[in-house]
This record gives sequence, C-alpha cells and structure tokens, in this order.
Amino acid sequence: MKMSLRYLMSGAVLRQTCRWYSIQHVNEQLHVHEQDGLRTITLSSPKTRNALSLSVLEGLESAITKESSTLRCIVLAAQGKVFSAGHNLKELTSKDGQEYHTKVFDTCSRLMLTLQNIPVPIIAQVNGIATAAGCQLVASCDIVIATPNSTFSTPGGSVGIFCSTPGIPLVRNVPRKVAAHMLLTGLPITAMEALQAGLVSKVVPEEDIEAETERMVKAIISKSKSVIALGKKFMYHQMEMDIASAYREGSCVMVNNINMVDGQEGINSFIGKRKPVWTHSDE
Amino acid sequence: MKMSLRYLMSGAVLRQTCRWYSIQHVNEQLHVHEQDGLRTITLSSPKTRNALSLSVLEGLESAITKESSTLRCIVLAAQGKVFSAGHNLKELTSKDGQEYHTKVFDTCSRLMLTLQNIPVPIIAQVNGIATAAGCQLVASCDIVIATPNSTFSTPGGSVGIFCSTPGIPLVRNVPRKVAAHMLLTGLPITAMEALQAGLVSKVVPEEDIEAETERMVKAIISKSKSVIALGKKFMYHQMEMDIASAYREGSCVMVNNINMVDGQEGINSFIGKRKPVWTHSDE
Amino acid sequence: MKMSLRYLMSGAVLRQTCRWYSIQHVNEQLHVHEQDGLRTITLSSPKTRNALSLSVLEGLESAITKESSTLRCIVLAAQGKVFSAGHNLKELTSKDGQEYHTKVFDTCSRLMLTLQNIPVPIIAQVNGIATAAGCQLVASCDIVIATPNSTFSTPGGSVGIFCSTPGIPLVRNVPRKVAAHMLLTGLPITAMEALQAGLVSKVVPEEDIEAETERMVKAIISKSKSVIALGKKFMYHQMEMDIASAYREGSCVMVNNINMVDGQEGINSFIGKRKPVWTHSDE
Repeated sequence: MKMSLRYLMSGAVLRQTCRWYSIQHVNEQLHVHEQDGLRTITLSSPKTRNALSLSVLEGLESAITKESSTLRCIVLAAQGKVFSAGHNLKELTSKDGQEYHTKVFDTCSRLMLTLQNIPVPIIAQVNGIATAAGCQLVASCDIVIATPNSTFSTPGGSVGIFCSTPGIPLVRNVPRKVAAHMLLTGLPITAMEALQAGLVSKVVPEEDIEAETERMVKAIISKSKSVIALGKKFMYHQMEMDIASAYREGSCVMVNNINMVDGQEGINSFIGKRKPVWTHSDE
Repeated sequence: MKMSLRYLMSGAVLRQTCRWYSIQHVNEQLHVHEQDGLRTITLSSPKTRNALSLSVLEGLESAITKESSTLRCIVLAAQGKVFSAGHNLKELTSKDGQEYHTKVFDTCSRLMLTLQNIPVPIIAQVNGIATAAGCQLVASCDIVIATPNSTFSTPGGSVGIFCSTPGIPLVRNVPRKVAAHMLLTGLPITAMEALQAGLVSKVVPEEDIEAETERMVKAIISKSKSVIALGKKFMYHQMEMDIASAYREGSCVMVNNINMVDGQEGINSFIGKRKPVWTHSDE
Repeated sequence: MKMSLRYLMSGAVLRQTCRWYSIQHVNEQLHVHEQDGLRTITLSSPKTRNALSLSVLEGLESAITKESSTLRCIVLAAQGKVFSAGHNLKELTSKDGQEYHTKVFDTCSRLMLTLQNIPVPIIAQVNGIATAAGCQLVASCDIVIATPNSTFSTPGGSVGIFCSTPGIPLVRNVPRKVAAHMLLTGLPITAMEALQAGLVSKVVPEEDIEAETERMVKAIISKSKSVIALGKKFMYHQMEMDIASAYREGSCVMVNNINMVDGQEGINSFIGKRKPVWTHSDE
C-alpha cells in the first residue's frame, strides 16, 4: 500500500518489472498484483469495456482463489471508464451452442459465489460504468467503494437477455422497488442512488478513492486473518437462517472465537493496553 | 402514451367516447384504459378516498388480469388527493359477519399476490396519501413513482385493526426499523423518507410524474414481452431462495433465455448494430 | 410522560423518592422507572461505558420482562456519552472458563430475542456511541431514535473477537454492503449513515429527542394494548415466511383482529366519529 493504487494501475507501471512487487498477467485482460497482504486484481481491457468473456471469468476465478499464506484482502479494480460491461455477447450466439452457454453461466455463477466464500474480504473499487454481469460482479463483493460519476444498471432485457443472474445479488443488496426498476426498465442508477439503495458501501470523490480504499484495507489487515475468516463465513451463513437458529449457532461461534489464541491475545492486549500480536492461526 | 396521462385521468376525458382509445368502466370507482400496450387503471372515487371496498378489490383484480395479447405494462393511478385510504371500514363491522370479512381479506391478499404474479410490470403512480391497504397496494406494485407531497402510513392500530397484512409487503420493501415505526406508531412517512427506505423507486415533482412514468413505460415496452415475463417471474421466485439454489436455477434460466427467438434476435441485432425486431413469443 | 425524560434520567431525580413514580434499582448499573404505562430502562454506568456485563444483561432481561398489567411501551436509554460499549472484555479471559463464556452469550442472545418477543414496543433512545453488543442491543429494539452525534460500530475484530452475534440483527436491519463494511473493517457509521442504512428509524437533534420519543410513545399508548401485541407478534413472525404463506396466515390474523372487542370498538368509534374506549383485552 506504499505505492498509490492509481500509480500501480497505470499501464506504465503494469509493464515494468519491479523488485518491490510482482505482477502476474493472468491473461491480457487481467492484471494481478500482490504486496503486503493485499492482492489487487485489475480488469485491464478498456477496449472490450472489460467484458466478462469466459476466459476473463476463468482468469478472475483463478486470480481470486490462488493460494497465498500471506493474503489478507483483495481489491477488485478496473482500467478505463467502464468498470465492466458484463458478458461478451459474441460468446452467446446460437453458433456457440447451448453447452458453451451453460459453461459460461456456470463459471460466472461459481465465480460470484466464490467471492462470498473466500476467507478474505474483497473490496470493489468502482470508478465508471458497471452494467449487467459487471453490476453483478460489483454486487457480489463484500464492500464497494464508488466515485460519484459511477453508474449501475442491469439492462439485459434491451438485448433480449433479461439480467436474471445479475438480479440474484441485486435483490439481496437493494430494496426490491429499486431492483425491479433496474431489472424491468434497464435504466441506470447513479452512485448516490446506489449508496442510498445499499448497492455501494461508500461514495467518495475520485481523488479520494485510493485513500478510502487504503483506510479500509488497513483496517482489515490490522486484524487477525483467522478471526476475519470466521467472521465473514458466519456473516453470510447466518443471514440465510431464521433469527432464533442464527443466535443458537452465533453463541457457539462467539465462545469458540474467544478461546482461539488470537481471541485471547486480543482481549489480553486490550486489558493490558498494548498492541495485539496476532498468530493468524485457526487454533 | 401520446395523450398526457393527466389529461386522460381528468373527469372530462373519462366521460368522452373517443376513437383513439376505449375506457372501460369496471365500476363507478375504477376506470380502465388501454392503448399501445399500456393499460392505465385509475382509482376514481375521491369521495370515498378511493376506499378498497370488496367491489373495488374485485374490480381491480379483474382489471389487472383481463386478457390482452397486446398488453405490455400497467400503470395504477388515482384521482384526488388520497391515492387510497385502504379498506372500507363500514364493511368490517360485526353485522357483516366473519364469512364476509374472510372474503374481503382473501380477495385483498389474492389481489396483492396477483400484482407480483402477472407477467407484465405494474407501476404505481402516487400523488397523494396512501394509507393502510392503500399503502399495501403501493408496496405490492413492482415500481413506484411518487410526488414529493405524497405520504405513506399504516395506521390501522388507531382504529383497533393492526395493519398486519399491509405489513407483509412493507417489511419486504423497507428496513424493519422503518416498518416497525410505521406499524407500531401509525405515524406517516414522507415521500423522501419512503424513497430513502425503499418503498418508492423514484420521487419526482408533480409536473414531471407523467414524463417519468412515460420514460419507464417506454423502456419496458421497447423490450420483448416474453423476456420481461420470464425475468419478472424469476426475480420474485429467486428472492425467496438461498443464494446457491438461486444461482443453480439462474444459470438454466439464462441459457434458456439465450436460446429463445427473442434472445438470439437481441444478441444478433446488438452485434449487427441494428434495432431488434421482437416476436414477443415464448419460443 | 408529564415530567421530561431528561429530568427523570438525571442523577438528582434518580436518587429521590417521589410519590409520583417509583424507581427500581435493578442494580447499580441499571435504573428502571415506570409511569403511565411507560417503562424507562436506563443504562446508568457511564464509568464502565455502560458495558454489558453478565449482571447487566441479566438485569436488563428482568427489567424488560417484569410483569405489569399496565405496561404499554418500553424506552431504553443510557446515561453518558457512550450508549453502550458492549460486552465486558474482562469477563471473557480464559481464566473465567468456557462455561462462563457460554453463559454470557446465551444470556445475551436470549435477551436480544426477548426484545422482539415481548408484547409491547421497545424504543431505543440513542445519544452517543453504540459499539459491538451495544450496537446489537440498539439493532434489536423495534424502533430507534438517535441524535446526529451518535455513532454505530461493530469493531470486535480489532480485539480478536469478531462481532458475529451483533451481526445477526445488523444484517437483518441494514443492506449487506453496509453490514459487511462495518463488520469486516470495524469502522463506525454516523447517525445519518445509520438512518440511510435503516439501522435507526429517526434522527433528531439532541434537544428534540424527548419530544420525538414522547410523540412515538403517545402514538403507541393511544392504541389498544392487545391489538399492538398481536400486530408486533405477527410482524416478526411473517417476515421470516415466504410471501404466499404470510398472506395465508395474515388474512386469518386480520379477521380475528376485526372480531376482537377492541377491533369492533375501533371501527364503531371511527364510524360514529367518537374517541375509542379500549378494553385492552384479548377477547
């Protein structure tokens, strides 16, 4: 996080090799960079409006799930004015066949669930247009920071393909009157409307988006990896339960958390008025 | 949509016969008009504050479900300063008997579910007060456009009848702190509070409400009828599922959609940079 | 409600004996006062930042569930600048043992569900910082009124104990992007952000909070106790059902409500243009 994310995301830097960090070209349309526990994945194909072709979907999945013992947080960013325009429609003509279409949507759905299932938080950094599966990708991250000029839409119906799967995270994030308006009319909402509706966590001016991202990443990285992992897992698990069952499981989760090494370290450091030293282990 | 909705809704026009459109008097308290794929249903009994008597509930149900091969969208509007004051309390005294009361509420509940189950989008155009079952009616439409002076409340408790059924769509549209405040105190919320809470999709000045409605209707009508129908159906279906099951079904829905005639027409017209020509068929 | 809540909550008054009302010292950290149907429970240990130790949790449970035939509404307030800082971490070190920790969290979870299960509405009056289980306590009340300088956070991860149980009411009140941001980063949100997200029902200036509370309490107390009780119960019950099942039960609830003595009294008083006289009975 010492170098600015903006600088890292610029083409010049991405083409360099630098001893401070390594950039992995998953493919031409995706850049991955990891440093100090933060992995930054950048959609880097402005020419295709960062279309989510099958190869990009597979690239994203592998970039997100790649094992790393030091990984603590992922930021998903994009180059250009379009965060992502969604599926590559050229892959969805009848000449590709139903089997291929099935592969595209199975991969896409698996990717979206993966964002929720990985043990580290994933933050979408949106500075532009997010439409259709691009909007779905944003809605599937844990946290979303957006600039005021960003817009969000699910206009699939206009090209004959209703945004049925983008609607899945959408209705779980925004009020249904907003979701229905977006899905049935295809009309976009602004970043401020998205904030009001709950689709984004924060709206900050373009010049502040890196500082805001850094603030969140820092807050996450300052905590124990294993505690964040158990917390994220239970959060998504309990939100689909009835409240009484959620509390029954929740009490156990709390007691187990307290008796973890990092749980006791946290409490003892707080009582002792010193900084905690985390093991990041599950013990 | 060539004539302004305001003009259509005025008493003068409603009493005319006109070769451009037909108005069906479902009963004295309800006017229905259909033109160019848009059906406009107007609660037109300002004297009774557009009370939802059993006959109005039955009239609404028949007006909404009436078969029409060209129907693409429904707008629900109201004459006068009260969008609807809810049930007609005179029908709920003990002298009518429990069987009659059961009929009133079964009809009402069936109507509310029908709004969700019909294949075309339904937009409530609210310019006034929506209370109790009137608020329920608004909350049960897909999209809601309201003017700033509109208010929303569920004050049934004040007359000894808690708004238990209006609470059903309410808690599914707004945060529970807002729903509980409305239901337990009976106090109204303003249009801006309703927008913030998610009960309405858009708030626009009174002079813009027709233009905004027209914009949404146009966006809906420009799409394939069958694609909108499958999208609306899956949207309400998936929001009651766990997310993994929703994705399992969602991938199938997408693949089927792509292989519909209108799915392929949409994609091919987009790639060919031409306007799509929809069949509106389920094939 | 004739004496101002601020006056009642001041230490001077709390130490008096007064023929107008009685104050029950549940323990040193909790004051309970009941008058004219309103029970006010005040967290009154600013020195401990109103920590929710096991004894305070038990005290709250007994203060909330104490039988009273005249009880109509509960207000939960706090002395000092911290509404509540959550669990007492000193009770969570390994020397207390897992059995003790289990008792703390079982008591806490039971208390939170009790707030939802009691037949009278409970209003949190927040003028300060609500963190961790303190934020959970706020999120578990039916209605929340907050001052603009209040803040809300779930920073447990910073001390190694993820706010897993505070997350249970949190994700049921605010959009998941807001919940995830609060839970994963631990960063606070302001009262206005909490209003936008749905965690609070109303934000009012500090000088107006008693008037606003009084307005809500008055609205609740003006209704029939038994009607409010059935309404609150069904509201929480139906929100965990699918919508079709909710309507099936809802119609029955409405018909039963209409045929209660207070249901008919409400309707007849409305038709007769007179004030209702409630029996508050379940008949």
